[in-house]
Amino acid sequence: MKKAGIIGGTGYTGGELARILCTHHGIEVKAMTSRQNAGKNVSDIQTHLKGYLDMEYTESINGSDLDIIFVATPHGAAMKEVPVLLETGVKVIDMSGDYRLRDVSVYKKWYGHEHSDPGNLDDAVYGMPEFFRSEIKKADIVANPGCYATATILATAPLLISKAVKNDIIVDAKSGTSGAGMVPSPRTHHPFCGESIIPYSVGTHRHTPEMEFVLDAVSKSSPKILFTPHLLPIVRGILSTCYMTFDLEMTDEDVERIYRDQYGKEPFVRFVDEPSVRSVVCSNHCQIGAKAFGEKVVVFGAIDNLVKGASGQAVQCANLMLGLKETSGLEVPGMGV
Amino acid sequence: MKKAGIIGGTGYTGGELARILCTHHGIEVKAMTSRQNAGKNVSDIQTHLKGYLDMEYTESINGSDLDIIFVATPHGAAMKEVPVLLETGVKVIDMSGDYRLRDVSVYKKWYGHEHSDPGNLDDAVYGMPEFFRSEIKKADIVANPGCYATATILATAPLLISKAVKNDIIVDAKSGTSGAGMVPSPRTHHPFCGESIIPYSVGTHRHTPEMEFVLDAVSKSSPKILFTPHLLPIVRGILSTCYMTFDLEMTDEDVERIYRDQYGKEPFVRFVDEPSVRSVVCSNHCQIGAKAFGEKVVVFGAIDNLVKGASGQAVQCANLMLGLKETSGLEVPGMGV
Amino acid sequence: MKKAGIIGGTGYTGGELARILCTHHGIEVKAMTSRQNAGKNVSDIQTHLKGYLDMEYTESINGSDLDIIFVATPHGAAMKEVPVLLETGVKVIDMSGDYRLRDVSVYKKWYGHEHSDPGNLDDAVYGMPEFFRSEIKKADIVANPGCYATATILATAPLLISKAVKNDIIVDAKSGTSGAGMVPSPRTHHPFCGESIIPYSVGTHRHTPEMEFVLDAVSKSSPKILFTPHLLPIVRGILSTCYMTFDLEMTDEDVERIYRDQYGKEPFVRFVDEPSVRSVVCSNHCQIGAKAFGEKVVVFGAIDNLVKGASGQAVQCANLMLGLKETSGLEVPGMGV
Amino acid sequence: MKKAGIIGGTGYTGGELARILCTHHGIEVKAMTSRQNAGKNVSDIQTHLKGYLDMEYTESINGSDLDIIFVATPHGAAMKEVPVLLETGVKVIDMSGDYRLRDVSVYKKWYGHEHSDPGNLDDAVYGMPEFFRSEIKKADIVANPGCYATATILATAPLLISKAVKNDIIVDAKSGTSGAGMVPSPRTHHPFCGESIIPYSVGTHRHTPEMEFVLDAVSKSSPKILFTPHLLPIVRGILSTCYMTFDLEMTDEDVERIYRDQYGKEPFVRFVDEPSVRSVVCSNHCQIGAKAFGEKVVVFGAIDNLVKGASGQAVQCANLMLGLKETSGLEVPGMGV
Repeated sequence: MKKAGIIGGTGYTGGELARILCTHHGIEVKAMTSRQNAGKNVSDIQTHLKGYLDMEYTESINGSDLDIIFVATPHGAAMKEVPVLLETGVKVIDMSGDYRLRDVSVYKKWYGHEHSDPGNLDDAVYGMPEFFRSEIKKADIVANPGCYATATILATAPLLISKAVKNDIIVDAKSGTSGAGMVPSPRTHHPFCGESIIPYSVGTHRHTPEMEFVLDAVSKSSPKILFTPHLLPIVRGILSTCYMTFDLEMTDEDVERIYRDQYGKEPFVRFVDEPSVRSVVCSNHCQIGAKAFGEKVVVFGAIDNLVKGASGQAVQCANLMLGLKETSGLEVPGMGV
Repeated sequence: MKKAGIIGGTGYTGGELARILCTHHGIEVKAMTSRQNAGKNVSDIQTHLKGYLDMEYTESINGSDLDIIFVATPHGAAMKEVPVLLETGVKVIDMSGDYRLRDVSVYKKWYGHEHSDPGNLDDAVYGMPEFFRSEIKKADIVANPGCYATATILATAPLLISKAVKNDIIVDAKSGTSGAGMVPSPRTHHPFCGESIIPYSVGTHRHTPEMEFVLDAVSKSSPKILFTPHLLPIVRGILSTCYMTFDLEMTDEDVERIYRDQYGKEPFVRFVDEPSVRSVVCSNHCQIGAKAFGEKVVVFGAIDNLVKGASGQAVQCANLMLGLKETSGLEVPGMGV
Repeated sequence: MKKAGIIGGTGYTGGELARILCTHHGIEVKAMTSRQNAGKNVSDIQTHLKGYLDMEYTESINGSDLDIIFVATPHGAAMKEVPVLLETGVKVIDMSGDYRLRDVSVYKKWYGHEHSDPGNLDDAVYGMPEFFRSEIKKADIVANPGCYATATILATAPLLISKAVKNDIIVDAKSGTSGAGMVPSPRTHHPFCGESIIPYSVGTHRHTPEMEFVLDAVSKSSPKILFTPHLLPIVRGILSTCYMTFDLEMTDEDVERIYRDQYGKEPFVRFVDEPSVRSVVCSNHCQIGAKAFGEKVVVFGAIDNLVKGASGQAVQCANLMLGLKETSGLEVPGMGV
Repeated sequence: MKKAGIIGGTGYTGGELARILCTHHGIEVKAMTSRQNAGKNVSDIQTHLKGYLDMEYTESINGSDLDIIFVATPHGAAMKEVPVLLETGVKVIDMSGDYRLRDVSVYKKWYGHEHSDPGNLDDAVYGMPEFFRSEIKKADIVANPGCYATATILATAPLLISKAVKNDIIVDAKSGTSGAGMVPSPRTHHPFCGESIIPYSVGTHRHTPEMEFVLDAVSKSSPKILFTPHLLPIVRGILSTCYMTFDLEMTDEDVERIYRDQYGKEPFVRFVDEPSVRSVVCSNHCQIGAKAFGEKVVVFGAIDNLVKGASGQAVQCANLMLGLKETSGLEVPGMGV
């Protein structure tokens, strides 16, 4: 049984890691930190875990006792923790944006401050098994992908890789509110968002350079993305609607073949006729669908933002890093209804 | 044209007063205060009012220039403002709980601090026209009813007044999130409340003594209420489900007659077969329905918590206090869908 | 007082017409038809209208007694009614898609059957006052615009007219469920759509040729639209997110100037920083916002699909056709919250 | 590996059985019937099950090849199927209301038609392991409890059994829309229910005699229940708010002790401070909480209506009937967020 720790175990990402791992047969949560709840029982805070994870939150965590640590702290805080943890020899998966971009100047431009750990940034592997499986297996530090980035990269990469489309992509994405985290804010205040759809960070969202960097890494196509996120009045789920332009017109069958070739053996990515948020919610699955219209093609990617878009994907990476079966702890279908 | 001021014009209650009054033909909003937005244009903050109310928020307000002032500040703050305003001769409607209870010891018990303005408390009239119309017409200070209290009192008073039921009442009420006000909190954080129903303040909600006091005032029945509010994942609307016990069993027809006798001439209260939140939302209407089962009777009251449950009822009172037609500015049906 | 009739008064569009007109000071509803509810009181079916519209549904309507008739029947049925009504000399506003396209072959392609009334199709005026005000004033038959088309045309026309953008437009639109009408269906079944976002009719929605035809009529730019509608778990509201490509790069200020020039005097269209569905819901207003990013520009259009997207716009047209003030009965702000 | 069949595999209950069983290590779904989808692959209809349950729907099922059959057909249809199945020697769990009541005259009164299988009705065991565990282990036919009945019986039985309360109970319950099943109807049409709360079947819901019968069976207290169900705008989850009257006043601690004594060893029922729908959704858990107020006590029961309220509880029973570990396939926590 591999031993895991979670730094930042009060938030949604940390809580979801605990929810997934508490039924995992190969990884056991041995420590969870929380500044505000240190000393309290985890299941008094995360009451749905009662009977599944009866342990206390601690102030800090000792890397040398553990096989892997998930760092679920905010952007900026993670890069303070990670180098210290890596020193102890433990493997680390960072859930924040701190290790997702390779270029420190791009990091500074989008995150607004210097990167304090450029050395480990160089070594970090982007934790998307569909494209970096072999690197993840060998990595000590994995940067877990952003939620929007996951849905969008999975939806667009195959066409970019196949050189079927131009590099100009429009991404109109819609996310449930849990993506905003557990801290109340005006935007996630129910009377404001509960019966509306709210575009935000139009063209300025930090997942933009992440998508561009990773898509370029896998396709060498220098993609340029115009990204418009919208907040939906649902709790979980992302639908990323992606618009691309063919270089040569293709039929729906041509497109489908490209996706089936790319993902046919993937355990968690499926090409379907009608991708549905509800079919993947509460699971690590991603559903993709596409329709061609003349020189344009629309591709949809649907995930649960907290599972494939965060903690499920991190567990998938942890399985690979620890030599476990990749799908361990994640073999559950979506809710459907 | 009567002149009105709104103290606390940033919050939902103040904003809703402005929304209603900006199409009122007899009352004009001449001043709105806001500590945080003083100097800004109201319609830059309340963007739906653009073109309807183009004025600046101010720090303070001068009672002597106005005919009526709505005090839409939190509990405790209002009783500091009200005596100063009354000195200037202006009429005042307080939207908070500060002037709803007559007994300062009951106030202290439920609100946790002394009442600093017991003199005006004695003079304040409870602003529910269906039961205190003549008093409201003569009042200088009106205490606008609470949202839950409005739905519940209107639903239960007729049976209490008719002495048809015992004094023991169970009120299971459900409210949209706008009732919690505009300040974000963990309970109204969408990921927490958006796909749930959350009981809160069980048996301890401050509208309990208000309901008991007012129902006793109108029925002399010393009602004892067990009140369980629940937060619903909708923005506007309250449904109050009230359970009472007959002294003598009655048919549905008997019950209906009591309600029709009580409310037959009321412009905003209607007895219907299937009371519906959606039928009253965005209007000052209250729909009431009832079913008798042996010795028990269930009565439903449905209102828009921000209109009949707050700002609409306040405008109804203002019309009475200023000698205008009672329904002015409020003659709009609910949305239906 | 002008006299109006509504054919198809049970559905959402007919009900919303009644809701708006029952507080209109210049138009009075004198007749409403309903096949299924003939003989019943309107306000027993549309319970929110009780006290506002007490009349019976009838089987049929007599055009010669009325000044204007709103035909709120489904596509295909309307073109059977309209020629008969026009014969009586009454003015007609058709709420369906039957008179929106000029070309009968385009109609047949998208609606799947022949157009049986090509003569009146030639005379029909597209009921969007912002672009066809003078024609509407003189029209006998007005084709009321589709909901998606309204939000999208208002959002994109100014840039097309100014020749600032190419003719290639991507429209990613999101609609509340009331747009689907009152007949239950699998897609609008709450367990299916209530916690999801559902793309549908991708590239095949009938508002596509309508948008293209009307935008071409106003801009002579032969626009080509890729339109992806999504069903949102809200009842009312449309947000249309439109992506266009500049011919010459523009700043946000350049873009704003174009919109302010176009709509500065319009009573119901406003350019704002952050367009919001919630700010326009329950009103006839449209909010538009835009952001430029290099050679691309994103424009948002927000409306209430049942008001500006259907019945409110129809009343606006009726006011023009009947020589009344254009804004009569529609001068109410959105709900805000 | 035990072999299971599902009759009626297209609906929500059948689909949820399949979702739970496809990760169960002791029971395998070998056959699913569907009249409308016979011949189609299950995962083309229930797309979330792709990769988990790849089999075809059939017209009928052969009991003699299987260990257990879940009958997920509507009320009335089940009692035609069950006797035929039992003849083949297979064990049966009926998900409908057909075998929940013992008295055929009560059945006829509430369901409106004669019971055609009174013999098996006598043998049927009510499938609530918390109260009928030993009987379920030996049963050939189990009547799976109703969703509202499950939440309410679990919440109220301990106080009734302890003779702490009178027999007069008010149950104000709120359910997600999935409880209404997969067939679209006016009540579950999103525009009607999506921003409302709708009381229905007030005092006439068929779970009323079920609750009374079962609570009497476990407590010999002849309970009389006034039951008011409400439809909530959420997909999954029931909160049952139950009001009882003490015979002798008790403290919260007294009440808590009764519940802990009753359920301390139960794997799926927990007494908590703040019971939460969201904490149990997608799991077989029930959370219960209570507050005493003078002579009254309010008890809350929260479940997922499709899991503990239907298919999860059926699997729990199947485990018992087949000699498997009771919690097999059900050891997953709720979603939390």
